Amino acid sequence: MSRSRRPGPSTRVRVHEVRTEAEPGADGVVRRHEDRLATEEPLEIRLAWPGRPAQRVAVTMRTPGHDFELATGFLYGEGVLASAEDLRTVAYCTDVTLSPEQEFNVVTVDLSRPPRRAPAERYAGLSAASSACGVCGTESIDDVLALCDVQRSDRWADLRVSADVLLGLPERLRAEQRVFDSTGGLHAAGLFDADGSPYVVREDIGRHNAVDKVVGARVLGGTSPSAPLLCVSGRIGFEIVQKAVVADVGVLAAVGAPSSLAVDLATRANLCTAGFVKNQRFVVYSHADRLGV
Amino acid sequence: MSRSRRPGPSTRVRVHEVRTEAEPGADGVVRRHEDRLATEEPLEIRLAWPGRPAQRVAVTMRTPGHDFELATGFLYGEGVLASAEDLRTVAYCTDVTLSPEQEFNVVTVDLSRPPRRAPAERYAGLSAASSACGVCGTESIDDVLALCDVQRSDRWADLRVSADVLLGLPERLRAEQRVFDSTGGLHAAGLFDADGSPYVVREDIGRHNAVDKVVGARVLGGTSPSAPLLCVSGRIGFEIVQKAVVADVGVLAAVGAPSSLAVDLATRANLCTAGFVKNQRFVVYSHADRLGV
Repeated sequence: MSRSRRPGPSTRVRVHEVRTEAEPGADGVVRRHEDRLATEEPLEIRLAWPGRPAQRVAVTMRTPGHDFELATGFLYGEGVLASAEDLRTVAYCTDVTLSPEQEFNVVTVDLSRPPRRAPAERYAGLSAASSACGVCGTESIDDVLALCDVQRSDRWADLRVSADVLLGLPERLRAEQRVFDSTGGLHAAGLFDADGSPYVVREDIGRHNAVDKVVGARVLGGTSPSAPLLCVSGRIGFEIVQKAVVADVGVLAAVGAPSSLAVDLATRANLCTAGFVKNQRFVVYSHADRLGV
Repeated sequence: MSRSRRPGPSTRVRVHEVRTEAEPGADGVVRRHEDRLATEEPLEIRLAWPGRPAQRVAVTMRTPGHDFELATGFLYGEGVLASAEDLRTVAYCTDVTLSPEQEFNVVTVDLSRPPRRAPAERYAGLSAASSACGVCGTESIDDVLALCDVQRSDRWADLRVSADVLLGLPERLRAEQRVFDSTGGLHAAGLFDADGSPYVVREDIGRHNAVDKVVGARVLGGTSPSAPLLCVSGRIGFEIVQKAVVADVGVLAAVGAPSSLAVDLATRANLCTAGFVKNQRFVVYSHADRLGV
């Protein structure tokens, strides 16, 4: 199989760029040139364990690159994978039915023992399964809290992060974003120590995928993903907080705004959250003591 | 049941806001005040038709409000719902097993006849179903093209939108964003005529949901969602293009960047796409003739 089939993180296209004058009615200047887009391709994650052949557990649209980390981090965040010790192999699928184009879009995670929690149908985009039970925010929060082995109540009680360190995180993220520079279209996530030094930074077209990749990178490196700081380039939604809580993070910082349910979960799961971290300003939504306020 | 159980589009919280001086080491000024967050709650969409009881087809995290539009637009974009004529009712679920908190998070769409396309497991977040087939971008594109009844090749051939109209769309969106003003955390989507007059604008914490809401609003209003212009506040991913193509839009404009697969689909589906629409500048990725370039 040709390596050239493997998609890269960015793709070349020919575009028309139009710049107009501020005056109404101006036609503008058109420039034809080559540009780069963030690559988007589906990734299918399959899961196997002794006695069970590989089965699809998720399909996500992602930017190719660090696919094993993405698959590993996703399963960690769902509570399916508890630690690197449970991993036998993570590999691109070599199923003979796959076309060359598909081969690098299917990752199989093979566990050395059955998962502590079966892959569930939570928040499925689409599923034909019947269900009698409804959904609500409180249930969603309880589901996530049930995933956490660690009693989080005192885990980060002594952590103190300075405003300077917090405000420096988005710039540290940005400095590591190689593909963003050429495409302007990628989210980033990074795990940092309490002084703001990065453990790992990853990019993806999907906010959630970028977090999965940094968590997966730590797990595949043989360590716990636990870290004082997680910084994300976008907003803080419920599922971002879920991933931060399951990974055991002390402070979640974001350039964007949080949602109501994200803050509810963070408050209950003992996670400090800060949003709008930019321009020498930030807003703290939960467990503010860790940021010295 | 008390109406007060019904969640609103924004939620009040108490926050700490920190502003620091630009000098390193400055501790900053802390202000404690009330703030508003965009509400995030799960929405379960159930689908029924004659002879088939209601079954879950999707769960999405969304901002409450215009839930019937969201459910309707989602099913339209998936090719499950072909027109308003196929709708019998759209209603909050009155299942006695649901708690008051859940009741406004479950919408049942009842069709007057079986859907033209069964709800599929495409892009499921999580599913336990076994699958032998893989995934790739080309397949994803073919799937969407198969959803389109209309032969799109000539549909919008005569459409011409001026640079002025295009550049004015984000501001028109913004002017209609009532919840964003108070929370800073919502995406918006709007359908517009060729002169930039809005048919409908909706907000949601999810980019995809905002598009589903505008499509659903048109369908529930008894018209086709087809429109010369769709403008979104975020980026253009594959699934946004899918929704635009199935809704039969001529030009998709976005404040953010597109992905590679989004542009591939738009090119094949005869959709004009423009990104980075701001500051008197935009970039055209497909079918540029409709923007006069």
